[in-house]
Amino acid sequence: MTRAAVLHGPEDLRIEEIPVRPPCPGEVLVDIDAVGICGSDMHYFSSGRNGQNELRRPTVLGHEASGVVTEAGPGTDIRPGTPVVIEPAVGCGSCPVCRAGRYNLCPSGTCFGSPPTHGLLAGRVTVPARAVHRLPESIPVELGALIEPLAVAVWAVRRAEVAFGHRVLVTGAGPIGILVTQVARAAGATEVIVTDLNDERLAQARKLGATQTVNTAQQDLDLSDVDRLIECSAHPAALWQGLRTLKPGSRATVVGQAPPAVDGLPLGHLQRWEIDLVTSFRYAHAFPTALALAADGRVDLVPLLTGRFPLDAAADALRAPLVDPNHLKVVVRPDGTPG
Amino acid sequence: MTRAAVLHGPEDLRIEEIPVRPPCPGEVLVDIDAVGICGSDMHYFSSGRNGQNELRRPTVLGHEASGVVTEAGPGTDIRPGTPVVIEPAVGCGSCPVCRAGRYNLCPSGTCFGSPPTHGLLAGRVTVPARAVHRLPESIPVELGALIEPLAVAVWAVRRAEVAFGHRVLVTGAGPIGILVTQVARAAGATEVIVTDLNDERLAQARKLGATQTVNTAQQDLDLSDVDRLIECSAHPAALWQGLRTLKPGSRATVVGQAPPAVDGLPLGHLQRWEIDLVTSFRYAHAFPTALALAADGRVDLVPLLTGRFPLDAAADALRAPLVDPNHLKVVVRPDGTPG
Amino acid sequence: MTRAAVLHGPEDLRIEEIPVRPPCPGEVLVDIDAVGICGSDMHYFSSGRNGQNELRRPTVLGHEASGVVTEAGPGTDIRPGTPVVIEPAVGCGSCPVCRAGRYNLCPSGTCFGSPPTHGLLAGRVTVPARAVHRLPESIPVELGALIEPLAVAVWAVRRAEVAFGHRVLVTGAGPIGILVTQVARAAGATEVIVTDLNDERLAQARKLGATQTVNTAQQDLDLSDVDRLIECSAHPAALWQGLRTLKPGSRATVVGQAPPAVDGLPLGHLQRWEIDLVTSFRYAHAFPTALALAADGRVDLVPLLTGRFPLDAAADALRAPLVDPNHLKVVVRPDGTPG
Amino acid sequence: MTRAAVLHGPEDLRIEEIPVRPPCPGEVLVDIDAVGICGSDMHYFSSGRNGQNELRRPTVLGHEASGVVTEAGPGTDIRPGTPVVIEPAVGCGSCPVCRAGRYNLCPSGTCFGSPPTHGLLAGRVTVPARAVHRLPESIPVELGALIEPLAVAVWAVRRAEVAFGHRVLVTGAGPIGILVTQVARAAGATEVIVTDLNDERLAQARKLGATQTVNTAQQDLDLSDVDRLIECSAHPAALWQGLRTLKPGSRATVVGQAPPAVDGLPLGHLQRWEIDLVTSFRYAHAFPTALALAADGRVDLVPLLTGRFPLDAAADALRAPLVDPNHLKVVVRPDGTPG
Repeated sequence: MTRAAVLHGPEDLRIEEIPVRPPCPGEVLVDIDAVGICGSDMHYFSSGRNGQNELRRPTVLGHEASGVVTEAGPGTDIRPGTPVVIEPAVGCGSCPVCRAGRYNLCPSGTCFGSPPTHGLLAGRVTVPARAVHRLPESIPVELGALIEPLAVAVWAVRRAEVAFGHRVLVTGAGPIGILVTQVARAAGATEVIVTDLNDERLAQARKLGATQTVNTAQQDLDLSDVDRLIECSAHPAALWQGLRTLKPGSRATVVGQAPPAVDGLPLGHLQRWEIDLVTSFRYAHAFPTALALAADGRVDLVPLLTGRFPLDAAADALRAPLVDPNHLKVVVRPDGTPG
Repeated sequence: MTRAAVLHGPEDLRIEEIPVRPPCPGEVLVDIDAVGICGSDMHYFSSGRNGQNELRRPTVLGHEASGVVTEAGPGTDIRPGTPVVIEPAVGCGSCPVCRAGRYNLCPSGTCFGSPPTHGLLAGRVTVPARAVHRLPESIPVELGALIEPLAVAVWAVRRAEVAFGHRVLVTGAGPIGILVTQVARAAGATEVIVTDLNDERLAQARKLGATQTVNTAQQDLDLSDVDRLIECSAHPAALWQGLRTLKPGSRATVVGQAPPAVDGLPLGHLQRWEIDLVTSFRYAHAFPTALALAADGRVDLVPLLTGRFPLDAAADALRAPLVDPNHLKVVVRPDGTPG
Repeated sequence: MTRAAVLHGPEDLRIEEIPVRPPCPGEVLVDIDAVGICGSDMHYFSSGRNGQNELRRPTVLGHEASGVVTEAGPGTDIRPGTPVVIEPAVGCGSCPVCRAGRYNLCPSGTCFGSPPTHGLLAGRVTVPARAVHRLPESIPVELGALIEPLAVAVWAVRRAEVAFGHRVLVTGAGPIGILVTQVARAAGATEVIVTDLNDERLAQARKLGATQTVNTAQQDLDLSDVDRLIECSAHPAALWQGLRTLKPGSRATVVGQAPPAVDGLPLGHLQRWEIDLVTSFRYAHAFPTALALAADGRVDLVPLLTGRFPLDAAADALRAPLVDPNHLKVVVRPDGTPG
Repeated sequence: MTRAAVLHGPEDLRIEEIPVRPPCPGEVLVDIDAVGICGSDMHYFSSGRNGQNELRRPTVLGHEASGVVTEAGPGTDIRPGTPVVIEPAVGCGSCPVCRAGRYNLCPSGTCFGSPPTHGLLAGRVTVPARAVHRLPESIPVELGALIEPLAVAVWAVRRAEVAFGHRVLVTGAGPIGILVTQVARAAGATEVIVTDLNDERLAQARKLGATQTVNTAQQDLDLSDVDRLIECSAHPAALWQGLRTLKPGSRATVVGQAPPAVDGLPLGHLQRWEIDLVTSFRYAHAFPTALALAADGRVDLVPLLTGRFPLDAAADALRAPLVDPNHLKVVVRPDGTPG
């Protein structure tokens, strides 16, 4: 048995004892160290829904987790004691989409913490060995919980096709926007302009690599000749505004969670200048690069971790970023909870 | 002097004598054989506008032209008597966009027949030698006027990244849709499904390579697993409908002239399945391929040419596709008009 | 038990009774209809080796096979009676190479008929259900044995990045060269020039889509402005010759089996014109496209099948293409052999 | 008149007075500040040849130059007093290769200092305005002479398709190898391993971003899983050695000047693992990125400049890197020479 944060309905999160299976062949048992809270967790918690998905039965939340392997099933090559991060989304591995390498788009894929699949906000979890990645020594285990959002940023920058020497506009300075800023810089962008409505977040973006910031609540975005737009605010207005700054033949990438339908797409403008509009969903093949960038120091995760909560206060963690908009990433630490 | 069709305002097209310069160095004089009528010509004729561009002074229309070189300026390597087609849109050749090879997006580019630049609906025109392409012997000069719309289709299929073995959906069976269908087949698409509201156009599409057609006025588009959508109808509804048929990780390309703003973009769906939305504007490097496909017989231009008008009836030509929606492409033949 | 052609050493092929497992979950039992003979089979038969690989224990040969499913294990969705082709090379499915979609390069991958993995030259075989592809009705089961070499050609043309409108040079008019010619045409190449030393093979290439052929034993290869070279002869001399015909910024692809080391690479020439030299090994994701092209009639397999042998004469089949160089593809038909 | 270093034959370099034209429309007159010495200059000086090109008449050497515009012809938008670097290689601008954006491969292109085109080792030169790029204030004019080799490195890293997170092997720690190391790091390579036979050069490489160095005269190159090899040593042995370290499906790029023919290409190995072999020649569209990287501090040019010579000692400059192999880049400063 282990203790876990189980969502029963909107605002109804309960800390419960749940069973833990010993690892089968190809599986490992992980003692969870930290679990990051993401916007999608907050949506499930507040409304029981996220995008097209809905909570239909009690489900353990959480998909951004690090920990230490304590037991390894037969046929795995990971020793107990190894610190790891968990890649939560897996494809079926055999459909044409998976075989082509884009397992994040597998029609029958699942993701820990995406109902009805149980998540990682628990003391211990049993997961497939192929879902865990070893954490390099230079990254503290707790910060491992931030590798998942960093993988989102890595994949976004790949989808955006940022090249060295590019001028990049990032709209939105939340945790994903700030990680995208750092990854874009690591990928050689010589200018990264970041927009937001919150001055503290913009100050943080400047500390972490933005070459310029604009508070679009206070001033116009007077910018042109942008090579790549990466939309991280989840606000269509930011997208429409950003599209106007792009060069002919350039590319906009939507990372922030998109609403089902949006009005006002400037399709004539996109066509006149052949500006491509693409999107980014989770990640594929991004954890190894995320780990390398964090280990190398190219990406600094420390300033993003702004709050820690024990498992018993998981509901507080799920409310924290709304209570204090200066929060970037809060984690829940199930450590020391009885197994 | 030569006779030309000059647009003075909405519905005010006049056949006038205008001067013709002898060719300077790097230029050639072309005796025009045929000029195709395009939707943009019809927009200028009916309303004095097309997209963002407006008629501000009397302008010769026409940008789809073939003819025979009658005089070549110094420094050109084209002999008088050579049949040619004219590539109407030219970039400045020195800006970063042109130097990167995407001259169709040059911010200071011009296009014959796009006001205020005079067009090709005239008995004779003097044009830069680099704007003309020799017509292979196997293509009659008159059909050369259809090479420009074929170049639009070639570029669209390139932008769409159609690969052999693909299942392609083409929305709209007008002249561009039918040429896109033929080019997609030439590029190896094993299935091309075409939609329209007009049964005669769909019948024509089937004759020219469509493997399936759907009249969406009469039945639902029950289709899935499409690799590439190429939107040629200029109706957002067709685009939204088409997007729902696409595979994860696939690509939609908008070729039909896009309105400035459209409502109802299913951005959440695009993001969940990482479907790219791109556009196509005119063409770059496409005339040589268009000529090769027509010469090779991969593309059959003959059935597309559905009407011929003398220069004096140019206004009738500009109204013909509205009068009879079964028209695909009508040409004006200034032949024999006094110079 | 089933009868199979087992190679014990150079020129020592024995027809033996071997056991057949009933299908486990995820497996199917296939009654083999035809097995094509490939150059690699001929190398193993004549010398006990092929490239870096060596026969170390008796092994069933054969990797180009079609047949009919007679029994399906649990968890498969293929009904007995379904005609299929077998994709012989499988990756591990979990290494980074497989996950990136290039399973043909999996370091721990195996291939039926590549020692020590037993092959398909047998009356019946049990194979993983994911290794079989349904044969469309329009393709006779016997011709299904040619889908594997067609998949080689599909992958080669993809690796070559042939685009519609290209001028392509194919060196070597053996079965792979002729299939590459057909696929290149299907992919929109407007010119395909084929070279060989054998006039009959060149005549066959012309019948199947080559726009020009050159017998390089009799005349010089006087050619330039080639967009893509696809080397299918396995002779470095043909490669060096072909490289000289390529355009600046173009691409050469080696498909014919390459020797471990070759002398005389014109690296200075490749560098001066930035000509890329790439290679093609087996295939990935190519069977569905191969099946679609054959079903669509874009590729004609019938003329390639030049000989049929019963299982008892498998050794004759393995010698046939050497005895008569006009053979393109011979198949062994284990049909009717006792189970 | 201006003074210039004119090569008359092997080892016969003369400082002579030559005429300078006032700038025509579209041209500028540049007062040269510094001219870097490159391996190709040294080849012309020592032997009268470089690669396929030969000195046939007295020619001014030099193609890596910075300076200050002193006079601007009509139709230019550069003010006198502007510090600039000169992009020496220009394409014709109108052939298909140029129009496709790869002007470095233009068959009729020319390059300053590549006989018979006069070079930039002179007090003043008149050049097309489109050949000059403004030097940002943060880069001293003298260091501008190193922007041309930096552009070589930028193009090489683009051709190599280095992506962030890659492990890169650079063979050769000369000036190009060290610049490639810096650019690869700027492009996000998390590991860059550099090999050479000279410990001082390797020490310099480590200071400028190499994460590991190997003196291959002293130890074996025990390395695997490399994503990208960039060959900068001009020694085939280094290329063959490097190819063995590459991952399946990876890419090797030859930047160091390649000999006309090389023996021992491991083509079988390349094919088994589909390793692409590409090359890099000069650069296209690379000066703006080179300037941005140097201005941004991503690339440090200061340690590369190891020697300065007056124009009268140009011959000494041309011998310096042979006399002292620790030299990375020496410049000639024609400053103050009478015009």
